[in-house]
Amino acid sequence: MREVAVIGCGMTKFGRHDDRTLMDLLVEASLKAIDDCGPYDGNIESVYVSSMLAGELTHQTAIATALTDQLGFIPAAAERIENGPASGGSAIKSGFLAVASGMYDLVLVTGGEKMRHVSADRITDLVSTMTHPQGEYAQGVTLPSLAAMFTRLYMAKYGVTSEDLARVAVKNHSNALMNPYAHIHSKIALEGILLSKEAEINNPIIADPLRLYDFCPISDGAASIVICSYEKAKKMSKAPVKIVGFGQATDTLAVHEREDPTTLKAVKLASQGAFEMAGLRPENIDVTELHDAFTILEIAESEDVGFFKKGKGHMALRNGETSLNGKLPINTSGGLKARGHPVGATGISQFVELTWQLRGEASGRQVNGAKKAFCCNFGGFGNNVTAFILSKE
Amino acid sequence: MREVAVIGCGMTKFGRHDDRTLMDLLVEASLKAIDDCGPYDGNIESVYVSSMLAGELTHQTAIATALTDQLGFIPAAAERIENGPASGGSAIKSGFLAVASGMYDLVLVTGGEKMRHVSADRITDLVSTMTHPQGEYAQGVTLPSLAAMFTRLYMAKYGVTSEDLARVAVKNHSNALMNPYAHIHSKIALEGILLSKEAEINNPIIADPLRLYDFCPISDGAASIVICSYEKAKKMSKAPVKIVGFGQATDTLAVHEREDPTTLKAVKLASQGAFEMAGLRPENIDVTELHDAFTILEIAESEDVGFFKKGKGHMALRNGETSLNGKLPINTSGGLKARGHPVGATGISQFVELTWQLRGEASGRQVNGAKKAFCCNFGGFGNNVTAFILSKE
Repeated sequence: MREVAVIGCGMTKFGRHDDRTLMDLLVEASLKAIDDCGPYDGNIESVYVSSMLAGELTHQTAIATALTDQLGFIPAAAERIENGPASGGSAIKSGFLAVASGMYDLVLVTGGEKMRHVSADRITDLVSTMTHPQGEYAQGVTLPSLAAMFTRLYMAKYGVTSEDLARVAVKNHSNALMNPYAHIHSKIALEGILLSKEAEINNPIIADPLRLYDFCPISDGAASIVICSYEKAKKMSKAPVKIVGFGQATDTLAVHEREDPTTLKAVKLASQGAFEMAGLRPENIDVTELHDAFTILEIAESEDVGFFKKGKGHMALRNGETSLNGKLPINTSGGLKARGHPVGATGISQFVELTWQLRGEASGRQVNGAKKAFCCNFGGFGNNVTAFILSKE
Repeated sequence: MREVAVIGCGMTKFGRHDDRTLMDLLVEASLKAIDDCGPYDGNIESVYVSSMLAGELTHQTAIATALTDQLGFIPAAAERIENGPASGGSAIKSGFLAVASGMYDLVLVTGGEKMRHVSADRITDLVSTMTHPQGEYAQGVTLPSLAAMFTRLYMAKYGVTSEDLARVAVKNHSNALMNPYAHIHSKIALEGILLSKEAEINNPIIADPLRLYDFCPISDGAASIVICSYEKAKKMSKAPVKIVGFGQATDTLAVHEREDPTTLKAVKLASQGAFEMAGLRPENIDVTELHDAFTILEIAESEDVGFFKKGKGHMALRNGETSLNGKLPINTSGGLKARGHPVGATGISQFVELTWQLRGEASGRQVNGAKKAFCCNFGGFGNNVTAFILSKE
């Protein structure tokens, strides 16, 4: 396999984009990523677009072909990759393997979703289409309800409290304040969302024990990276970031079929695969983006990736180890919780954030001297997970 | 790049499957492809599923994850690939590159679509979502209307007649009679569909000059292949079929933006790419599957692939050169016209047919001594095309 590097990245602001189409967002992120490469020789030879719901929400299919035309990259190859909320990670994997194989030298990977123009009920239903059709969907299971049941088990088994969950939200909102691309720019505190009379109004129960601030928002947005062979990257870019590790794993579609539902086995296996390929261990990582669609997931993933012992992630959080100035900052971008979660863009926006971190371009939220970065994109309720490790040369 | 081979293939009957889900069809095709490998060492490490409209038509997303679970292949990686009607070709490309890169040894590629449970109007609309949203879709353009305009130009420029179009249908219906997996098993003749009084009733105009028998049917179905490195294939399979050439190209999304709308530039470039990689020329091909969603497309593609001079494809057809016993049999399976077109399955079913041909397993429709085979999967109205060349060892 050839070595592969990221040489350009860009994203739209995540949030509401009522007056723009999904294509507008994909184009903006793509052009920013291409611009970010600086002057480069050669042409984009292949375009991968990740979107979970382009057809259902924007009535457009074959959107990768449309983007390739829109950007003037014809006759470049083009594919759309759909893997639920891990669509972004899967699209990066596709580009990574296409370059690693030697088939293409220069590849664009762009992901996006336009979700705010329909009702939240419709989104909740559409997102639920990735659950088990007979075992979950037909029983009325939604992702929030799965997360609530998962959280209850976690609380009972490991002593995680509602305060711990709120701490994830407070930390990630705080990080997002320094990320101009984040959906949510609002400072919150434990007092306002949990420990006061107003909290019941500010932060109502949605799916017991989860409250409003335990959920990521529904966002519009797009993110994009340009990748190429490391050989080419060294010539083209002043600051190429190497993709040194990749892993992926699936788990049972239905959560109740898992031997231990509190263990995210696909996160474990995907991470192991990535660390093995990179020849690194969790303690080598300086900064990480985890898939905190629900606050509990940041805690659980931080354990199953191997950063903390099982059941101890919330203690690391309490101790500030995962804060911006902690030992292992998690979700410096604000995470899904506050950067936002335009589904198809998410995995790619994690890459964008980590590329900025490794280049030292993350301004107010920069992790000093970051050299190795890890991200985890989480499909379904942990049934298809991708993990990547990035390295500063 | 490592050499890659097909070691197993299978498909469901194409047609109506009112009492079965898309998942049922994907599972049947996958299990047949796996069974067809014979005893094999190692596990399926990655699953690619092609489907254009799984979400829209069956309300299920992340279906590749679901299939991986259903087949018991967890923790194998899984992705769904969507590229309009070329989804199948794009999924094979993804598997091909994944094996070629060295990432995976054994990969399952399965495609399917379930379309017959909704109205033909709904299908026509959903298929049109791959056209240009502003320049075509919003103007009421559908794929049949694009095909009709394309045919008019072709008739005016090259002298193709309605009889030539009907000849494609007659030939492909005839081939399909010998394919037990084909959607349509009905013998037709020029007299019955064009040259008689009854023809107006049997074969009415749908989009002038195209008549009913110029269109492929709407089908349910699935098709599947297992691919692996050629090194491994030689040990595992008695009759591995090598993937020796691959090419892909995009063209303008809107057909009217093309300099010469009668030239399928993406077909030309994708084919050139495949022939170049294989070190072969069109005259080396013994059997081919082209994307005849509309009868005119078989004629036009047979020219732009390079089998016949531009404007002469219909003459080769008239002379019987593309018949089963001709110099270059086209669509021995019956093609989209008669084998059927469950969109996500189509590109993979072409591979299945060609694998059978190269192994000498195509019974009544076998092309004697076939050694090299070519197929072309056509996305949009020729805006994203994949081409592959297969070779008997």
